Amino acid sequence: MKFELHTTDKNSSARAGTITTAHGQIQTPIFMPVGTLGTVKGVPPEALKDQVKAQIILGNTYHLYLRPNTEVLEAAGGLHKFMTWDRPILTDSGGYQVYSLGQMRKIKEEGVIFKSHIDGSKLNFTPEYVMDIQRTIGADIMMAFDECPPYPSDYDYAKKSMEMTHRWLKRCINRFDSTEGKYGYEQTLFPIVQGSTYKDLRRASAEFVAEQNREGNAIGGLSVGEPAEKMYEFTELVCDILPKDKPRYLMGVGTPANILEGIALGVDMFDCVMPTRNARNGMLFTTKGIINIKNKKWEKDFSVLDDGLDCHVSNTYSKSYLRHLNKANEILGAYIASTHNLAFYLHLVGEARKHILAGDFASWKKEQVEVLMQRL
Amino acid sequence: MKFELHTTDKNSSARAGTITTAHGQIQTPIFMPVGTLGTVKGVPPEALKDQVKAQIILGNTYHLYLRPNTEVLEAAGGLHKFMTWDRPILTDSGGYQVYSLGQMRKIKEEGVIFKSHIDGSKLNFTPEYVMDIQRTIGADIMMAFDECPPYPSDYDYAKKSMEMTHRWLKRCINRFDSTEGKYGYEQTLFPIVQGSTYKDLRRASAEFVAEQNREGNAIGGLSVGEPAEKMYEFTELVCDILPKDKPRYLMGVGTPANILEGIALGVDMFDCVMPTRNARNGMLFTTKGIINIKNKKWEKDFSVLDDGLDCHVSNTYSKSYLRHLNKANEILGAYIASTHNLAFYLHLVGEARKHILAGDFASWKKEQVEVLMQRL
Repeated sequence: MKFELHTTDKNSSARAGTITTAHGQIQTPIFMPVGTLGTVKGVPPEALKDQVKAQIILGNTYHLYLRPNTEVLEAAGGLHKFMTWDRPILTDSGGYQVYSLGQMRKIKEEGVIFKSHIDGSKLNFTPEYVMDIQRTIGADIMMAFDECPPYPSDYDYAKKSMEMTHRWLKRCINRFDSTEGKYGYEQTLFPIVQGSTYKDLRRASAEFVAEQNREGNAIGGLSVGEPAEKMYEFTELVCDILPKDKPRYLMGVGTPANILEGIALGVDMFDCVMPTRNARNGMLFTTKGIINIKNKKWEKDFSVLDDGLDCHVSNTYSKSYLRHLNKANEILGAYIASTHNLAFYLHLVGEARKHILAGDFASWKKEQVEVLMQRL
Repeated sequence: MKFELHTTDKNSSARAGTITTAHGQIQTPIFMPVGTLGTVKGVPPEALKDQVKAQIILGNTYHLYLRPNTEVLEAAGGLHKFMTWDRPILTDSGGYQVYSLGQMRKIKEEGVIFKSHIDGSKLNFTPEYVMDIQRTIGADIMMAFDECPPYPSDYDYAKKSMEMTHRWLKRCINRFDSTEGKYGYEQTLFPIVQGSTYKDLRRASAEFVAEQNREGNAIGGLSVGEPAEKMYEFTELVCDILPKDKPRYLMGVGTPANILEGIALGVDMFDCVMPTRNARNGMLFTTKGIINIKNKKWEKDFSVLDDGLDCHVSNTYSKSYLRHLNKANEILGAYIASTHNLAFYLHLVGEARKHILAGDFASWKKEQVEVLMQRL
């Protein structure tokens, strides 16, 4: 993997760059749609390319491990071939799902023993095993196995958890560096900064992660319920320590405003289920603000969803029609809303990049945050 | 509406023709995907055009009357504009849903009083009102309001029901002929032959319907649980009476074999929820036979769904991938399977047309029926 940093904004820490992977280039800052089970919910791969213009998508190691399973993925020749997606893929480590979905989990130094949320079967994830699974999935970017402590966590728990995450990181790196990709192309491994909301821990973790000198670095354990200001504070603290010549990935973030603020703090990569999950619930992010399509006010509004986007569904289907589909619980409603929301997110980071390159990102961002978060 | 009959097969009653409507031409024989609530379930309009190659779709008057409702549809300028579909649309009369979904229905000479399946509100459908609703929906082809008797029905009930359907037809025609389309284009009205499974009734009904001299005619009350042989017997009986220079529509039919047999008997138009409903349950119709995608045998079958179709999803996604999506209950599975099944149905009637025009329909049909209905 290669990262080329083109420019850094003069009035913020925002950066524009290009990541080159075995499956093509990614223009940063970038948003990565979440494709939990080998599909971005409701959006066909062809729409992801043509309408959303996604450059990289995310897969969830824990979910893919259970369904379809690694045997099927290996027989398919990896996730790219299985789901017919020839652009870059990033997989998380399953760490987050172990904690959010796993039943009866036991976290030990060796790894985590927990029960499947599908059939209750006993699973054992170790740092080494999680590397092996991600080798089989074949993502371009693999994530280290970490513990994501809840918010708030007391200092002692946060410290111990962080230290174990660091030891796990070493084991991930050892396993990763002693194995090779299974499908003839290179993969890379991103470590994850933890440390909860304690400055000294975050600093220590960012320094430890930076020392590993991997090709990119991630910030985990934020966007887990803390106030937005705290998230920005710790993102800034960590970004100031992480190397400038490597892409920075803020995991699980966020709203359009969160993303613009994250970019301003020096983050290059984002992922979040919000655009697709909220779409299924009738919430649209548009270039003019936020729409709850269930509201009566849209019943006879035949204007298109958003004329500010170069996306077929956004400038074809009306608010009235989408409201009807949502009310009637029609599959097409999920497709239209999800495709639109993701197209908007990709449009947003694309515009951010343009303004970084043009030198007026900070003023543009300030104006946008107000527009984008207003309720229409 | 105009119907041009190009040729009739020498060894069967199969016909190839062209229907011209205000929204374009339809090459017959044709299959019409069912778009109950202003959407063909799971298939975006763009996929209906590009992948399915649908020439006309169906809307359900009863469902559209309830959701979004006629006020919204009229404000939108009709269903075509509401759902962004610029090709022909046919609407049923709501008669079938009144009987299958309505609660506490009372059938009287004046019309039907029943309760909405959505909110229990009291509705009153008369032949005149059903014409008015379809004028507001704006379908190119409107259907007369009929009673669809269950199978089996006793002779007396079937006879009385048929006679009332005939009187209702006269009222539909009067209303239709004394009103105009609301959106600046012409609509047409198809009467429906009833008479259950009694030869004299069917003959009488077909003769009555033929005498009305409308631009097309439909056969209702079949495919309601009777054996296939009975359906073919009565389709043949009715087709022999209905005028040759008007398109014939066999309502609610059916499997690929049913459609090929119907074409052989002189039917020009078909509709059925089977391709989309069965798709959502994991049943695929392909050029090689029927697939239950849930079966373990497809788990590691990475061949495409059907390489015999000119349809993106059919020759892109693998059986293994679709099985995974179906098992995980992912929306994308419904999209892929529904789009594929409809593309197959349109391919099937397109091939039938080619063979009718080439003069070898009967032998081709015999061979196809065996292939298409085998379980893979």
